[in-house]
This record gives sequence, C-alpha cells and structure tokens, in this order.
Amino acid sequence: MLSVDEALRAVLSRATARPAVVCPLAESLGRVLAEDIASDIDSPPHDKSLVDGYAVIAVDVADGSTELQILEEVTAGELPTQIVTRGKATRIMTGAPVPSGADSVVMVEQTQHVAGSGLGLVRLASSKVTHGQNIMRRATSMTKGQRVLHSGCEIRPIEIGVMAEVGRTQVRVVRQPSVAVLGTGNELVPASQTPAAGQIRNSNGPMLVAAAEAWGAAPVDLGFARDDRADLRRLISAGLERDVLIISGGVSAGVLDLVPGALNELGVEQVFHKVNLKPGKPLWFGALSGPAGDKLVFGLPGNPVSSLVCFELFVRPAIGRLSGRSDVTPRTTKARLTAAFSQRADRPTYFPARLAMLGDEPTIEPLAWQGSGDLRTLAEANALAYFPACQQEFAVGETICVLPLGR
Amino acid sequence: MLSVDEALRAVLSRATARPAVVCPLAESLGRVLAEDIASDIDSPPHDKSLVDGYAVIAVDVADGSTELQILEEVTAGELPTQIVTRGKATRIMTGAPVPSGADSVVMVEQTQHVAGSGLGLVRLASSKVTHGQNIMRRATSMTKGQRVLHSGCEIRPIEIGVMAEVGRTQVRVVRQPSVAVLGTGNELVPASQTPAAGQIRNSNGPMLVAAAEAWGAAPVDLGFARDDRADLRRLISAGLERDVLIISGGVSAGVLDLVPGALNELGVEQVFHKVNLKPGKPLWFGALSGPAGDKLVFGLPGNPVSSLVCFELFVRPAIGRLSGRSDVTPRTTKARLTAAFSQRADRPTYFPARLAMLGDEPTIEPLAWQGSGDLRTLAEANALAYFPACQQEFAVGETICVLPLGR
Repeated sequence: MLSVDEALRAVLSRATARPAVVCPLAESLGRVLAEDIASDIDSPPHDKSLVDGYAVIAVDVADGSTELQILEEVTAGELPTQIVTRGKATRIMTGAPVPSGADSVVMVEQTQHVAGSGLGLVRLASSKVTHGQNIMRRATSMTKGQRVLHSGCEIRPIEIGVMAEVGRTQVRVVRQPSVAVLGTGNELVPASQTPAAGQIRNSNGPMLVAAAEAWGAAPVDLGFARDDRADLRRLISAGLERDVLIISGGVSAGVLDLVPGALNELGVEQVFHKVNLKPGKPLWFGALSGPAGDKLVFGLPGNPVSSLVCFELFVRPAIGRLSGRSDVTPRTTKARLTAAFSQRADRPTYFPARLAMLGDEPTIEPLAWQGSGDLRTLAEANALAYFPACQQEFAVGETICVLPLGR
Repeated sequence: MLSVDEALRAVLSRATARPAVVCPLAESLGRVLAEDIASDIDSPPHDKSLVDGYAVIAVDVADGSTELQILEEVTAGELPTQIVTRGKATRIMTGAPVPSGADSVVMVEQTQHVAGSGLGLVRLASSKVTHGQNIMRRATSMTKGQRVLHSGCEIRPIEIGVMAEVGRTQVRVVRQPSVAVLGTGNELVPASQTPAAGQIRNSNGPMLVAAAEAWGAAPVDLGFARDDRADLRRLISAGLERDVLIISGGVSAGVLDLVPGALNELGVEQVFHKVNLKPGKPLWFGALSGPAGDKLVFGLPGNPVSSLVCFELFVRPAIGRLSGRSDVTPRTTKARLTAAFSQRADRPTYFPARLAMLGDEPTIEPLAWQGSGDLRTLAEANALAYFPACQQEFAVGETICVLPLGR
C-alpha cells in the first residue's frame, strides 16, 4: 500500500499544466501566467515628483536662496514649459514631471507662499535641501523592454496592476482546469428530497463541487449514478470530457463497487488503489492519456470526511498543478496539543481539529469526532491534526504536525 | 494624526454587515451564514455499517460460532428484511442499515465465504468481536432539530456539505458587498492606450478591482475622473450607489486635490484624513449614513504601492466586516530578517518583502524597493515587513512583525 507521499508523487507525475489560453486582463485574477511580460515603457516615464511642493536647485538653496520666484504650476498630466534657474522654483504636484534645471523637490508643507508679481514667491522653511530629494528618477521601477513578470507566476491584484501599467489588456494564462463531480450509490437522494428509510442525501457532491471551485477549478456537478453498470458508464463518459473526474463512493470492497470496472472499460488506467492513511484508505486514482495532457480520475471514499481528507491531500494539489502552479504540496504547520490523544490505528491519521493561537504559540485541539461519517464535527474544524502510525499515545503539550484547512 | 490601529478601529466602527439575502446553496461558497441551520434528520438515520462485511452478534461469535449461515445481502439504499439470530449473519455493505438482532460488523477482509445451501456460510478468521464494532449509531453526528451550523460562520465546502445533508437548497447569507473603484487624475490613460509625455496608464483601477474581488466583494470599475469638479461629482455619485467607494488619488495636498471637497458636497462625512504610516499617510476615510448601514468611502493615495498597503490594512478588513465576518484584523506573523535594514522614517513603515521558510523558521527579506511608485518590485513581494518608527536600525537575524499578502 502506498504512503501518502508516494501517492501524492504518483498523482503529480500525471498532472501537467493545461494549455495556455488568452484571456482579458480583468478575468485573469488567480490564474497562472503562461508568458513573460515585458514593459513597453520606462516607469516612471520621466523624473517625477513624489510629493506636492516646489522643484528647486539644491545648491542654489544651500547658497542662501530660500525665497524663490515661482515660474509656473505643473500638475500631473501636464508638462513643464520653463527651465528652473537660480532664484527660481516651479510649483509641482505629486506625479508630475520635474522641470529641466531643477534637481530636488521641497514639500509644500515646508514652504510658505508669498504674494508678489506673477505667481508670487515661495519661502522655504530651511536651506537644507538634499540633491535629488523627493524625486523618483525615470525608469527606476521598470525599463522599456525589461521582463517585469515571469511565466509561471500566479496573478494576484498586484500583477494585474503591473500588467495594466505596461499596457496589457489581454494575457496568456494556463487554462482553468475543469472538474466533474459524480456521486454513486443507490442510497443517495438529492438535497432537495426527504430521505426515506435507508436513504441519505447526497452531501459529498455539493461539497466537492464547492471544494473544486474554492481551489480555482471550474466545477460541473454531474449529480449521482445508481450502482448500475450502464448508468455509471454514461455518467463517467460525460465526466471524462473534463480535466478531472472526481467520483465519490464505489471504490471500497463491496460487491456493488462497480466504479473501477467501469473506469477500466472506458480506458482509464489505474495508477493506484488504496493509500496508507486514515480516513481515506480506499482512495482510487487513475489517468486517461490524452493529447492535451492526462485526464485524472479520483475515486474518493463515499464517507464525507474521508472524501474531504482525500480532496485536501491529493485532489487540491492536482488542481494546482493542472492550473500551472509549481508549489502545490499541502503546507503543514506545527502546534502543541491542548489535550492528550490516543489512537489504535495502524495507519497515519488525519483528525479533525481546531487550530488556534495561545499568545504567540499555535495550539491544536482534536475535536470530538465520531468517525468518517460525522461531517457536522468537521464543520467545527479548521485543521487536520496529523498522528503518525508509529505512536499510540500523544501527551498534552506535545508538538505535532497540522494541516490547516483552507477557505 | 491617527495611528494605524486607531484608524482601523474608526473604519470598523462604521462597517456593519450588509442585510441578509436568500441564495441557492450552490452559490453560497465564501459567504457568511445569516441564520442558524438545524438538522431535519438524525444522521446517520439508522445504525449504519462503517465497513463492508458481516453483521453478527458479538457474544454468539465469542461463544464459538465462527461459521455462520448467511441470511441475506443488504447494500446501501436497501433495508434488512431479516432478524439476525444466533448462528446467523447478514452480508452488509458500507453505509447500509445494521439489521435487528446484530450488534457488530466483521470486516469482509477478516472472513471467508464458504459455499453451502442458500447464500452459503461465512467463516470468521477470529472469534474476537467487540460489541458495537464497525457500527455508527443512529444520530451520532446529528440529531433531528439540533443546530448544526451557527449564524455568522463562513461557508466553506464543508458547510455546504452539512447543509446539503440536512436538506437546505436555499440559505440566508449576508449579502456580498459591492465595491466601486474610481481613479482620478488628468495624467491617467487606460491600459489599452500608449501614454503620451506626462501621462501614465491607470494601473490602480484594475489592481483595486481585482483586490476587491479577491476578498469576496462584487467590484465595479468606474474608470477614472479628470481633476474636474463636475466629472468627479458625477462619478462619485455613481460610486455612492455601492456599499464601498474606493477613490485612488486626489487626497494629498495638491491644488487639484478636489476629492474631499466633492465628497463633502455629496454628504459624505469625513471620519479621518491622514494616518501615521508609510507609505499611505494621505489616506482619507469617510462615511455616508444610509438606511441599510453606512456606505464607506476610502480615498487612497494615488501611488500604487501606497494604494495597496492602505487596501490591505483598511479596505480589506472593512470588506470582511460588511460581509459579516467577525475576525477581520490583518493577521501578522513573525520572522527573522535576512539582511540589515535601516530607515529614516518618523512613521511606522510597511516595506515590500519576501517571506520564506528556512527549515522550520520563517525568514523575511526586504526587497530593493524604489518607493511607492515602484509596483514592479511589489510584484516580487509576498509580505510587508513592519518596521516601527521608534527604531532606525534593524540587525540581521532580528525578529520583526510581518503582514503576509494574500492571494
């Protein structure tokens, strides 16, 4: 039986970034860049003032000219028309181009306006002016032709700002992976229906659809299939049109667990079945080779908590890799146990828990979880506490690994 | 001048959760619940088997009956029709109801099927069966009528699963706040245009629209206004139809900084102007009282990095509170400086930096940032390093506070 790490490696070895597509900049948030972005401009495009104030010549002020004739006013969007010479200053607004001749800007708060001929005079509070002060030189942030963003970076609001600055309104990104979610089982009824004796509502489907959406995929809810070969084949075929097919239920050892058989008939190659973890051991993973990269198929255990644990450990990294991300391994952290914990499991256990801060120190409290069917208690969790199989008893205050549950 | 903490308190004191609306369950991801959710069922609805195996009587097996007559097969979705008595067992699948009489389930992996009359016999590998093993008792996870989710909780995939389980297909959530973004300045041209001398592209608008979207608001891009009273009034009026109006630029001390005046004319009350931080000092914040809670107006400095810092520190928590979240204060962490840092600022500084892990230890590297106009370097940052004003020199290895930058 594969370990969690081995299984994750097997999943990621089949998960390749989807092809690049062009999309409008405004729709690119959260995607991964599929091209380098070069600047078409110097930024700033001119020596620009960082403050509202007066453009002056530093050495002129140092020599004693602290009352200067105002030549003109330049606001952002305007160009200076006059050269600043000794005894002169130009009123200048934040962002505006610094006029020729001037080499420094004095903040307006450190000046006083004095009425006089023309625009009047400005009186500086001090003769201490540092050469270059309050000026951002042309091309300090970007040079025309410079690569400003790299292919493979995730597009956050900042990157959208950078691309707008260099004039990109369309951008090549890794296509968003599509994920189909299919439940299986004769016991399932939709959430809208009251279950009869022996039936339960399909909670895995809506949960997994939301999980795929939360991690940046485009989900499709295929509903659920009966434990019936024809029904399964039809819905699995539909699911295989997407990049990822998540099937929940139908992969354990029961006589009606028809899913692996149906997948095999449709050309999906089994990569592994069963992983050494709890809950989630019956996980099935396979792939269907295709021209635009393998399609991935996850058979998740039908219990909702097992389903979610497998999603976090395996499906979420796969969606990340299909989306073009490089760093997709679930990020664990460490925390101190607030209560003793004992287990009889012979498998590594991921246990619903509450991660909190006690002052500067992260703490982790295992919840009163009633096993893999208990979704309600999982809703109180914001993390999974990790208990390795080699140890049965964990003491209060012991530091253990924790997998925070995202959004 | 207000401190960052005082300013944030002032913002949050005006930010109240938007009214509740009813939305389909499938669209509720990321919203905040505006009602308690009670279960309409016991979950599980019956004593259910946690494994595929055989339902037996523990004491019967302990007494030596390790070869049992198979009564029937019950799969999930079916109901047992026979009572299990001594010497008998029922084949049962994961999730199926445990038949009357039986009190334990033996995993199929620990049994052997023996051909015989009817369905044949099952031979158990061991006579050690614990009473109740592999059975999840009715209502262990939820009891009919029990409150399973609380008003105010954020809806994650898990909560969607819980609500599907208890039959909710519609749910009351706090309405998603709407955010209008408006740039100002005669120097601005849209990203699609090549700037002439003295002009720059509007990068703040697209960046702030994306930031609002990333934090769960519904953004509207109003483009940008000229430094012109009529144009400003028209666009600010349009922005005041939303829950939040973010204006970038036009709030520093320049002669064309008309924004505070225009806001005042439109009935927006100034709450504060200027905050003791760098970059972002000129931040303006006001509110317009309304029947469905105050509308909030942020005047962010025009420089893109100042804009983003103010967004992270003030706008993002406000969006969180309008969305119904209680815990919205920006979450800082601690990290060790990888390089010495010195500053001359008399204000607390938030400096673009790279947060990384060196083994188990978080480290923070201040970037070669060229000041508040330098958005390109901010794109290399995943955090803001915090340098308090009381200290000028920071040594390599010193531990400082860090504000991670989200998505």
